[in-house]
Amino acid sequence: MKRKHSLIPLGGVGEVGKNCLLLECGEDLILIDAGVQFPDEELPGVDLIVPDVSYLAERAARLRGIVITHGHEDHLGGLPYVLNQIGSRTPIPVYGSRLVLGMARARLEEHKAEKLCTLHEVDFGATLQLGHIAIELFPVGHSIPDAAGLIIRSEAGIIVHTSDFKLEEMPRLGMRRLRQIAREGVHLLLSDTVRIESPEPTPSESVVADSLRDILRGAQGRVIFTTFASNLARIGSVLTAADELGRFIAVAGRSMERNISIAREGGYLTVPDELLISIERAERLPEHRVVLLTTGSQGEPSSALGRMAIGEHRQLRVRKGDTVVLSATPIPGNQTTVSAIIDNLFRAGARVFYPPVTPNLHSSGHASRQEIGQLLDLLRPHYAVPMHGEYRMMMLFRYLAEEHGIHPDRVILPEIGRAIEVEPDTVRLGRTVESGAVLVDGLTVGEVDGIVLRDRRALANDGVLVVAAALSRSTGRVIRSPQIFARGFPFDRDGSFLADAEGRVSHVLTSWVEREPEIRILAEAVKDSVAAFVYQRTRLRPMILPVLTEV
Amino acid sequence: MKRKHSLIPLGGVGEVGKNCLLLECGEDLILIDAGVQFPDEELPGVDLIVPDVSYLAERAARLRGIVITHGHEDHLGGLPYVLNQIGSRTPIPVYGSRLVLGMARARLEEHKAEKLCTLHEVDFGATLQLGHIAIELFPVGHSIPDAAGLIIRSEAGIIVHTSDFKLEEMPRLGMRRLRQIAREGVHLLLSDTVRIESPEPTPSESVVADSLRDILRGAQGRVIFTTFASNLARIGSVLTAADELGRFIAVAGRSMERNISIAREGGYLTVPDELLISIERAERLPEHRVVLLTTGSQGEPSSALGRMAIGEHRQLRVRKGDTVVLSATPIPGNQTTVSAIIDNLFRAGARVFYPPVTPNLHSSGHASRQEIGQLLDLLRPHYAVPMHGEYRMMMLFRYLAEEHGIHPDRVILPEIGRAIEVEPDTVRLGRTVESGAVLVDGLTVGEVDGIVLRDRRALANDGVLVVAAALSRSTGRVIRSPQIFARGFPFDRDGSFLADAEGRVSHVLTSWVEREPEIRILAEAVKDSVAAFVYQRTRLRPMILPVLTEV
Repeated sequence: MKRKHSLIPLGGVGEVGKNCLLLECGEDLILIDAGVQFPDEELPGVDLIVPDVSYLAERAARLRGIVITHGHEDHLGGLPYVLNQIGSRTPIPVYGSRLVLGMARARLEEHKAEKLCTLHEVDFGATLQLGHIAIELFPVGHSIPDAAGLIIRSEAGIIVHTSDFKLEEMPRLGMRRLRQIAREGVHLLLSDTVRIESPEPTPSESVVADSLRDILRGAQGRVIFTTFASNLARIGSVLTAADELGRFIAVAGRSMERNISIAREGGYLTVPDELLISIERAERLPEHRVVLLTTGSQGEPSSALGRMAIGEHRQLRVRKGDTVVLSATPIPGNQTTVSAIIDNLFRAGARVFYPPVTPNLHSSGHASRQEIGQLLDLLRPHYAVPMHGEYRMMMLFRYLAEEHGIHPDRVILPEIGRAIEVEPDTVRLGRTVESGAVLVDGLTVGEVDGIVLRDRRALANDGVLVVAAALSRSTGRVIRSPQIFARGFPFDRDGSFLADAEGRVSHVLTSWVEREPEIRILAEAVKDSVAAFVYQRTRLRPMILPVLTEV
Repeated sequence: MKRKHSLIPLGGVGEVGKNCLLLECGEDLILIDAGVQFPDEELPGVDLIVPDVSYLAERAARLRGIVITHGHEDHLGGLPYVLNQIGSRTPIPVYGSRLVLGMARARLEEHKAEKLCTLHEVDFGATLQLGHIAIELFPVGHSIPDAAGLIIRSEAGIIVHTSDFKLEEMPRLGMRRLRQIAREGVHLLLSDTVRIESPEPTPSESVVADSLRDILRGAQGRVIFTTFASNLARIGSVLTAADELGRFIAVAGRSMERNISIAREGGYLTVPDELLISIERAERLPEHRVVLLTTGSQGEPSSALGRMAIGEHRQLRVRKGDTVVLSATPIPGNQTTVSAIIDNLFRAGARVFYPPVTPNLHSSGHASRQEIGQLLDLLRPHYAVPMHGEYRMMMLFRYLAEEHGIHPDRVILPEIGRAIEVEPDTVRLGRTVESGAVLVDGLTVGEVDGIVLRDRRALANDGVLVVAAALSRSTGRVIRSPQIFARGFPFDRDGSFLADAEGRVSHVLTSWVEREPEIRILAEAVKDSVAAFVYQRTRLRPMILPVLTEV
């Protein structure tokens, strides 16, 4: 069934993370992926960012289902939040591979959101007919098993959406489908671009596995191994190497435990039961028989490895003789925390292997510039849209596409909330829908806004001064002299600075009494006066909160 | 004159930045370098970090001088602060190359600290006799001209301090001196380790110059060029290329202007006067005749380039047709801001060349692992101390030294404030002196402490709630019902949350009235009650400031 399709990115374009793409065809809507994004220091205190799906929520009855391409956080992790936002009265069907559904189930249980959807396993190669939309999932190479790309047939022609992929280790079936589809002719390609800044393909997982085996073989004592908890390929490699070398494996870190358990249940990791042991048992075995598999590859201070490194883990502690392997590269923004954890591990007496100092310790799940070029040559699409990348990556994709014979005008740079209208003779940006980021902080969802963030940044920079005074409601006179409380603000230890500022406030209050101002106006005057005094003496701009009590 | 020497690092070991090494020999003290460090997000609001030189301040009369090895911020930038801390009644002699002194003069003027010291130019190869300490400066390769390493003769033997260096482009005189000294025998080597994680030497400056020339030649419109303002070698390369290709150069950004002017005065940049033009003039020339040389290579939002990219520069704006060249790699921690600026430049319509996407755009000033190995082979020191590196870099240095035949016990890992005692038969860690970091925030120096920082982090995470109420001093009754003001804290927009919390406070105040508690105890009870309520409802922990006024 071919009909006019619109693609509306609700996240994951012009940014890395919270992938979420709405597919609209007539009355039918399908959501592809529901990812989260992790905040950087520009969003102080924020725990998570999820896509704003208001547009979809207003059309919930038309939503035929949610398709999740693979089990990574930036594709799956926002599912409970998205389901809650949609607020559908009937459960929404969610489609994906067995592994995706296993991981989705864990997430939904955590958020008590199981009843908001029904889970449906999809086989690669089968066509999923959702309303008038036909989608086929094909397997792509990525750092988690059963990752899918999508083939969507529209009235304008075939749309291929790679989602996250690399050609290195592309499953044979996926490669075959791409070749077949290329022969049919591809109207529009949506391509992963996150690693387009790297010219070369990543080493293959088998090269990494060899390198890990060598380190394990050379280690005298315990080996502590960390990678992304979602990198089941890597986890498989280290389990195999440990098994071969007669080491047992204990797992530390909740997400690592959970993913291994889901992967084993789904048959994605075939591990003899006796290989996996408890931490207690590992602590009793000779050190050269032990591998600890832990979370913390991004330097998270609260991860198992982060705590072990500084002696704050309940059971485990890194010690002299340990070999620690970081089998992951820092995500941009995490470089400093990863460096800090490596420093702590060395301080604790371990020998640490980490990239790029030790080569071949990590294989990325994403296509390099060269691989994206190969994909363009293979599919020769009429139009292309760079996905899952920041602005510069989308521009580099446009330059690359031009090198591969695609006119720059046929590379559409997507925007969040802006429909990509797919028509037979063109693909173009169309209407704009409500969209954006929903910030999660503690139990609050969507309540942290621009004002809260602006205030947090101001508070972080120069702290806060609370200026308290009590005034008589009848005479306006000061009945309790002003007091200033400072937090996060540096003042001289002898206290004369705050006393001077309090004197200023007294002066303002008494000089204004005759004018009988409204309390709000008086509060503004106090604030301005303190701000000017503080700035002149310190060049700092703390937040100033006047609390004038009339009694 | 040979005597027992102690080396006391006051900064720049186990960290990158604020290099500062005290040399003690009998009654004589010499300070080597007085650098600053730039804070990361762990130190919110802090402007600068400088070494704590209290130990030296207490012994100011014994200080024979300050030697600055080169003009970078992390070696020179803390000079005014250090001089102020020392508080000597007589001006302290400061020694360095002509370029160092030019840059020092600018810094001192900025801080009105010219009278705290006297400046003395030193020639390479000459021996500086300061009290009983004899120091020779020899030229090293680095990303600023006239960078010096030091040769110090002690009773135990020769100490070589490389300061920042690379062997690539090592001046012939420096190389010759190292060879001569190697023949005499080196007792102790202090070596730069900051780039030990990179296996390979950096491309030479001439390769970078070629690459820049190619980009300039290919550019149709304006070229906007940025690098570290202190990288005079790179600035020289771009000036030469522009001159050859018939382009004029306008400079934007205060530190870039200042450094170019100092370098020209000192004869370090030989540029025909007519090549450098004003921004006004550049704006009137045809675009293909213009190079703009700007600050902002680390993505600083307030830099000339940062403002130009988003249209907030007073005179300049990046536009379609511009070619922008970032000739620097991001310092760890700056990756995100650099990416953001590149995104903004592309958005503004420019074509952007940046590493590593474009190769050979940057040459580091520091020795790679391989070059450090070469230095170890050349000098074959009895003992070695890794400097200017974080803990893991110092450990990698120890491993590398072992590969080059130096026993790990002979590699001493230095600590800030811990003396390295240099004796004929050993080099070892000795006594500990007062030391640490002095935080500069606005005009305050040393007043931001652990408590201020802890409060700032808490404020940034979850904001602040000010809880105000007035009580009767005689009866203890509430005479002004509680009010809560929130900043940086997300609450529901209908306000019911804060109203509920205020209700809680009323309840606490009325239920405590009979017990006639001290106001402090009552304030604690209010705080605990609000904290518990807020946490239960939101899982957040804002800072809670009770302001109870008794009237």
